[in-house]
Amino acid sequence: MSILITGGTVITPTGSHAADVLVEGESIAALFAPGFAPAIDGATVVDASGKFVIPGGIDAHTHMELPFGGTFASDTFDTGTKAAAFGGTTTIIDFAVQRTGKNVHEGLAAWHAKADGNCHIDYGFHMIIGGVDDDSLKAMDALVDNEGVSSFKLFMAYPGVFYSDDGQILRAMQKARENGSMIMMHAENGIAIDVLIQQALSRGETDPINHGLTRPSELEAEATRRAISLAKVAGDTPLYIVHLSAYEALAAVAEARDNGRNVFAETCPQYLYLTLEDQLGAPGFEGAKWVCSTPLRTKHEPHQRDLWRGLRTNDLAIVSTDHCPFCFKDQKELGLGDFSKIPNGIGGVEHRVDLLYQGVVDGKISLQRWVETIATTPARMFGLYPRKGVIAPGSDADIVVYDPNGRTRISVDTHHMNMDHSAYEGYEIAGKVDTVISRGSVVVADGQYHGRKGHGRYLPRGLSTYLV
Amino acid sequence: MSILITGGTVITPTGSHAADVLVEGESIAALFAPGFAPAIDGATVVDASGKFVIPGGIDAHTHMELPFGGTFASDTFDTGTKAAAFGGTTTIIDFAVQRTGKNVHEGLAAWHAKADGNCHIDYGFHMIIGGVDDDSLKAMDALVDNEGVSSFKLFMAYPGVFYSDDGQILRAMQKARENGSMIMMHAENGIAIDVLIQQALSRGETDPINHGLTRPSELEAEATRRAISLAKVAGDTPLYIVHLSAYEALAAVAEARDNGRNVFAETCPQYLYLTLEDQLGAPGFEGAKWVCSTPLRTKHEPHQRDLWRGLRTNDLAIVSTDHCPFCFKDQKELGLGDFSKIPNGIGGVEHRVDLLYQGVVDGKISLQRWVETIATTPARMFGLYPRKGVIAPGSDADIVVYDPNGRTRISVDTHHMNMDHSAYEGYEIAGKVDTVISRGSVVVADGQYHGRKGHGRYLPRGLSTYLV
Amino acid sequence: MSILITGGTVITPTGSHAADVLVEGESIAALFAPGFAPAIDGATVVDASGKFVIPGGIDAHTHMELPFGGTFASDTFDTGTKAAAFGGTTTIIDFAVQRTGKNVHEGLAAWHAKADGNCHIDYGFHMIIGGVDDDSLKAMDALVDNEGVSSFKLFMAYPGVFYSDDGQILRAMQKARENGSMIMMHAENGIAIDVLIQQALSRGETDPINHGLTRPSELEAEATRRAISLAKVAGDTPLYIVHLSAYEALAAVAEARDNGRNVFAETCPQYLYLTLEDQLGAPGFEGAKWVCSTPLRTKHEPHQRDLWRGLRTNDLAIVSTDHCPFCFKDQKELGLGDFSKIPNGIGGVEHRVDLLYQGVVDGKISLQRWVETIATTPARMFGLYPRKGVIAPGSDADIVVYDPNGRTRISVDTHHMNMDHSAYEGYEIAGKVDTVISRGSVVVADGQYHGRKGHGRYLPRGLSTYLV
Amino acid sequence: MSILITGGTVITPTGSHAADVLVEGESIAALFAPGFAPAIDGATVVDASGKFVIPGGIDAHTHMELPFGGTFASDTFDTGTKAAAFGGTTTIIDFAVQRTGKNVHEGLAAWHAKADGNCHIDYGFHMIIGGVDDDSLKAMDALVDNEGVSSFKLFMAYPGVFYSDDGQILRAMQKARENGSMIMMHAENGIAIDVLIQQALSRGETDPINHGLTRPSELEAEATRRAISLAKVAGDTPLYIVHLSAYEALAAVAEARDNGRNVFAETCPQYLYLTLEDQLGAPGFEGAKWVCSTPLRTKHEPHQRDLWRGLRTNDLAIVSTDHCPFCFKDQKELGLGDFSKIPNGIGGVEHRVDLLYQGVVDGKISLQRWVETIATTPARMFGLYPRKGVIAPGSDADIVVYDPNGRTRISVDTHHMNMDHSAYEGYEIAGKVDTVISRGSVVVADGQYHGRKGHGRYLPRGLSTYLV
Repeated sequence: MSILITGGTVITPTGSHAADVLVEGESIAALFAPGFAPAIDGATVVDASGKFVIPGGIDAHTHMELPFGGTFASDTFDTGTKAAAFGGTTTIIDFAVQRTGKNVHEGLAAWHAKADGNCHIDYGFHMIIGGVDDDSLKAMDALVDNEGVSSFKLFMAYPGVFYSDDGQILRAMQKARENGSMIMMHAENGIAIDVLIQQALSRGETDPINHGLTRPSELEAEATRRAISLAKVAGDTPLYIVHLSAYEALAAVAEARDNGRNVFAETCPQYLYLTLEDQLGAPGFEGAKWVCSTPLRTKHEPHQRDLWRGLRTNDLAIVSTDHCPFCFKDQKELGLGDFSKIPNGIGGVEHRVDLLYQGVVDGKISLQRWVETIATTPARMFGLYPRKGVIAPGSDADIVVYDPNGRTRISVDTHHMNMDHSAYEGYEIAGKVDTVISRGSVVVADGQYHGRKGHGRYLPRGLSTYLV
Repeated sequence: MSILITGGTVITPTGSHAADVLVEGESIAALFAPGFAPAIDGATVVDASGKFVIPGGIDAHTHMELPFGGTFASDTFDTGTKAAAFGGTTTIIDFAVQRTGKNVHEGLAAWHAKADGNCHIDYGFHMIIGGVDDDSLKAMDALVDNEGVSSFKLFMAYPGVFYSDDGQILRAMQKARENGSMIMMHAENGIAIDVLIQQALSRGETDPINHGLTRPSELEAEATRRAISLAKVAGDTPLYIVHLSAYEALAAVAEARDNGRNVFAETCPQYLYLTLEDQLGAPGFEGAKWVCSTPLRTKHEPHQRDLWRGLRTNDLAIVSTDHCPFCFKDQKELGLGDFSKIPNGIGGVEHRVDLLYQGVVDGKISLQRWVETIATTPARMFGLYPRKGVIAPGSDADIVVYDPNGRTRISVDTHHMNMDHSAYEGYEIAGKVDTVISRGSVVVADGQYHGRKGHGRYLPRGLSTYLV
Repeated sequence: MSILITGGTVITPTGSHAADVLVEGESIAALFAPGFAPAIDGATVVDASGKFVIPGGIDAHTHMELPFGGTFASDTFDTGTKAAAFGGTTTIIDFAVQRTGKNVHEGLAAWHAKADGNCHIDYGFHMIIGGVDDDSLKAMDALVDNEGVSSFKLFMAYPGVFYSDDGQILRAMQKARENGSMIMMHAENGIAIDVLIQQALSRGETDPINHGLTRPSELEAEATRRAISLAKVAGDTPLYIVHLSAYEALAAVAEARDNGRNVFAETCPQYLYLTLEDQLGAPGFEGAKWVCSTPLRTKHEPHQRDLWRGLRTNDLAIVSTDHCPFCFKDQKELGLGDFSKIPNGIGGVEHRVDLLYQGVVDGKISLQRWVETIATTPARMFGLYPRKGVIAPGSDADIVVYDPNGRTRISVDTHHMNMDHSAYEGYEIAGKVDTVISRGSVVVADGQYHGRKGHGRYLPRGLSTYLV
Repeated sequence: MSILITGGTVITPTGSHAADVLVEGESIAALFAPGFAPAIDGATVVDASGKFVIPGGIDAHTHMELPFGGTFASDTFDTGTKAAAFGGTTTIIDFAVQRTGKNVHEGLAAWHAKADGNCHIDYGFHMIIGGVDDDSLKAMDALVDNEGVSSFKLFMAYPGVFYSDDGQILRAMQKARENGSMIMMHAENGIAIDVLIQQALSRGETDPINHGLTRPSELEAEATRRAISLAKVAGDTPLYIVHLSAYEALAAVAEARDNGRNVFAETCPQYLYLTLEDQLGAPGFEGAKWVCSTPLRTKHEPHQRDLWRGLRTNDLAIVSTDHCPFCFKDQKELGLGDFSKIPNGIGGVEHRVDLLYQGVVDGKISLQRWVETIATTPARMFGLYPRKGVIAPGSDADIVVYDPNGRTRISVDTHHMNMDHSAYEGYEIAGKVDTVISRGSVVVADGQYHGRKGHGRYLPRGLSTYLV
């Protein structure tokens, strides 16, 4: 089975060039200068004239079916990966979970069980270590060596659920330093935040906006700085800050990076477009739709300005979604009368490629950075390169043809995620996902879905190739 | 005429992958995954097994035949570009010169006259503006629009020769802001330096080391900060600091870059390997060999440590050579008894690719950064991408096969530059330029030279595609 | 002649305490704890109950009768020092002037001639060096050794009038380093500013506000950083930045101070209270009243916020006035139709003590910092301590009794400066100068003037005792 | 009873002046300019000619009889305050202790019981809050309002003993913000440190030097930054970092101070003079003498250079001793074979005034800063000014006559602390405590002790008057 993508402009992190792309089977067989591609019998020809040809998006932060606050994230691996494919994302890296007191291997097995046979696109796993102890530290080695899991997420928030204290963090970082893996960090000072939450509730401040007000950006910055310090004490363990939203935290990351440290950060579309006042502070309980942690930030401080700048300077290396959808009805409503009981999460796996392309249209980032932050760097950061994240001979044929002359309107009426609302309802994007190819199969074309559940395969990952 | 490079590992700024590269005529026609390249009748096959395939090096800072201090840089475009080719560099960007009171167009024409028909590899020109006035500002537009010159170098040093005052710098920066071009800056406070020089001479301190002692790193940092300020006042004109050698200057560049400014910097191999004490302070007049400006820095401050770090963090984007060779005999000797009369310059156009590869071997930079700093970023920075700087279909076939198992010994006995000494005499590199292809022609293979004078063509350049 | 000040609260830089102050002749003879002062026959008793007793103000930056732009600052030493006394200032340090090409000693003699016999309060001189050369450098030594002048002001602005280039600045700084004196710097990049001025005028932008728009804060910051660098190269020469108004310049000063450098700065009341938009941008030509250099700054950037903060943190050590009054009629009007011809200067020598006290009332600074910034630090900085600037036994009896329950309204109708307008017209201060004593003589009491021309004496100054 | 101190030079934080000081009863009655002091019948005359007259030293950080690690600090209030007096310190502020689970008021009462009637000089108390909860928060108000305790110390180290988690810290800071008191912080990340300690012990690394190696400076800096963040979240609670020893921590303090924050720090003589390698790493178990927390720092990093600089710039406001002596025999020896069991503490209450004066002699700090850091600022910081810390009419007559021509040799053979060794054995100081007056009584003169147990009184303290 051959596919020849003709006439398009290939976008890479360093620029763009005209090239035809030949796919044979599941891989890219060749790239040709215009006019050099041979005729191939029986090949499917995808006309990309006037369009961009980019590596399929990689969403390095999703939570399908995550149990949280007594309910589950509403997308399964089936619904979530299909929605991702619609939006030009051909790989996700989801978080398998070890909760405190549970076994790491069992946690990983449970996640395999959820995903196996259900995915429309390829997927990998990070592992959440919710209970750092001798057993889980040993398991970290095993996962790196045998399971294709080379990144481990810790939480400085959520005491009693996922929280690790600084000693546990230090031990996990030491272990990662030994086995070459990456520590991912939810950086918020959850111990202090919980005091603020209790104080707010005791004052009767129960609306969704209090979720944001009790998680001040200074406490994200504090935890970010602390994580950077602990990684240094551990011997310069590679550290990746997830869902960075506070400009003060970004400044801490930038300083570490200036010093040549292996410190990286991602942000998410919600922090680039949405705010505490306009969304989280919506009247009544409406704001619950946008309860996520780290929270949306105030528009009265330069958070969004600095986040976009960080994307330009590479102090923010990656845009992921932290996709963790909950329906408003029955799920978000668990927190009626008590913001602290609202399940945390926003769904967006379907819209990341579009929302960031809008940043290109708005002059916030370059085409090159668009591709780099949504595909190439995630692949490099998390040990998938050059199999994923690049249009190169021998790479998996995960390819998106993107139409800069198309238009996309985001709405609950048209999205494919299993959510009863959209965080970006009514947003208009001046671009459009045209064709999506996953491992050599056209899964989206002409607005139609051609993929299938089970096509997606587990991706054992190697160590990061992004280290300084 | 076809060339097929087989079995090699292509190195890019984002990683590496196995691919065969097909050259047709002067360009790259296709890249194939291993096993997918067709047999091509009559093609020259270059076996790159076990070797790296990289874009030909681009040296963005050379001074062939530069008149300086009553003599001329000793390499002509003929000898200099041939030496470059031997060392894996397939493009140079040389500096055409307008001196104070002279005409810009005439200066450019003079440089074309020197280079035309004499070059072994392709070449472009930056323009030194030695006299900012209404005429030269107007000429800047003309050069951008019609002559393929999109970068202009100013000097904060050398009063009476190239020096521009801050008003002239501001005006040139405003002009560059309008026409989209780049300002390159020799950032040293030459007015203050000249006071220190006169004071040293009046104290009888005439040895070569005084060249460095009278150019303190603080005065490079000062000028760097000043240039960054003026570029801001001019409306964020793109600014490129040449031959950065001082860690304090690097800190200023890093700060501007953290703020999202279009501020870039290059360093040179001499600053990465050589020092004030060990070379410039060599006994007797020997140190004259290493008189260049900015000067070699003391090993008692963290200059080299920070420069290598800057290469890793991209606060230093490019490694050029500032190739400006003078023979010791008769040329450097002009400064016997008066260090200020020693012609300023070090020759190195032949060794840059090797010297930086040694940085890879030493664990200072990654393979990716090696390729990026010596080829890809220079092409992007100076409007040559994707014609140059990348192994991609449609790009010029400027390709180097580099052998990580070879060895190179640098010596005046074996180098091809027109110099009677080597700045790196006796250096051993754990790698070797194997094959060099310039616009589809093999110019170096098996240690033999197959190129020819006149093969190299002038490269009209577009605007930078590297801006934030 | 004895004076006993009873019942007051003495304010010092470290706090306050109740004490009675005994003046004998021109000096402070003793301080007594309440109840311990003996009865003294014939002593004048000043009842300071409920009032503050502070050292007389020292205005370290005035320009009486300064020739500028074809006219003269409108206050003579007679009118200006009398107005100062009314406002609680008992010492001024004025700037004697050497213009380019003139003789330093003659410049100093000319200033003595203007002041001698005309002053109501004590006075010293700084020396403006408008032409750094071998002669003036030699004169610097002579002034330090023999003339009681231990501080020298240089200009990075006003080419052709006062401007020194970086080489001249470096030489003067080296000289100051040798003889222990202080370099004061007008830090604005005048070369670049003059380009902006010519461009504005050529665009027909002639209103007073353009004075500010053509002197962007970045160019004050640039010059400030440059001065700090040059002082470092000169061997850490003590450096004092005059009339700092830009928050970016303050940041540069703060950084140098964090590094333990002998870098100091003053600001002026105009920068703390007035803005580019509200005053300099007043309709028509009205804004000319507030043309001064450095200019008033925009209220859309955090200049005033940071200046007040700098006063609290001591990154701003002193508040002077840069008193340089010009009448609107005939003087400011010289710039009708061409802002660049408006004489630069604001008059305020009479209001500094009050305006800063208002900062205490507003919670911007403490009582301690009020006294320190207007009296104690100026004395220490400029070699007058402990003769001036402190209420201590043996010090000159320069004392102000300040009434925190009084009120002061600033107006041209009531001020004593020779100006036809007030920069602070209508300002209400929640405090009042009650009694002013200069060298043992009551010069202001009960709102009446009791001083006399000629009472004030020249103060030969020693070296600074404020160095780190 | 009158004392007249004649002929001396009074040193203040702003300079020095000649003055005679009259003491009547327990207070300073008057200061006279030379020649103005009356003859007073029966007055004791202290001839201070050629000597410095300074306010008695205030040691704001002592631990008399502190229970620690199963033993008690070896100085009682009797022996410790007598030794302090010998060394020119006339006030201590000791730490009363609430341990986790105990009652604050009972802790304070216990400390009163230890001190009452036993002190040779005046004393106050800070309160250690070892268990932040509703009761202890309430007690904080009571101590501020009724007990003269206006500063509360928390620990980020010593889990299970004194440790507060970040939520507890935040709550205590909120309380301090409300009642105007000061939070003092032992800033080390004790949770991470305990991991390092256990790892070191498990590797068999048991010598005293491991005490320092397991407490890396980065973990002091981390905790310092965290405390600063939490104080900001609490609403800019005044924060005082105790025993700062790491240059990275100092940088964090300096940054906060540049931002105008109420953040202060003290260091101790041991960090200014002693090092990890030379003392803590002494052969065998000898290093145990210098086990204290924070630990002595390596001489291979710029800790001491920066600490001295911080004293000059006031980023370090105070020098205290953290006096917490343990005898080598039987006490320090508790940690033979396990460094973690060595009681933490160094004794030095007797030597602070001398050791800092040596800094004056060595050109590290000025005379002014000597007085300010050892006496005036402690008084202002901790609510004792102007009763203590200043030579002013009405202040307590706590006065030291210091002889710059004397010499002091520190040795266990001559010191008065209850210790069997000296941390500074053999140190020679180029100065000498001559006469010490405590509340109007001469307690040390001619090398003899004239004081008595019980003379010292408890000092109820007010709120800090040092806030920005």
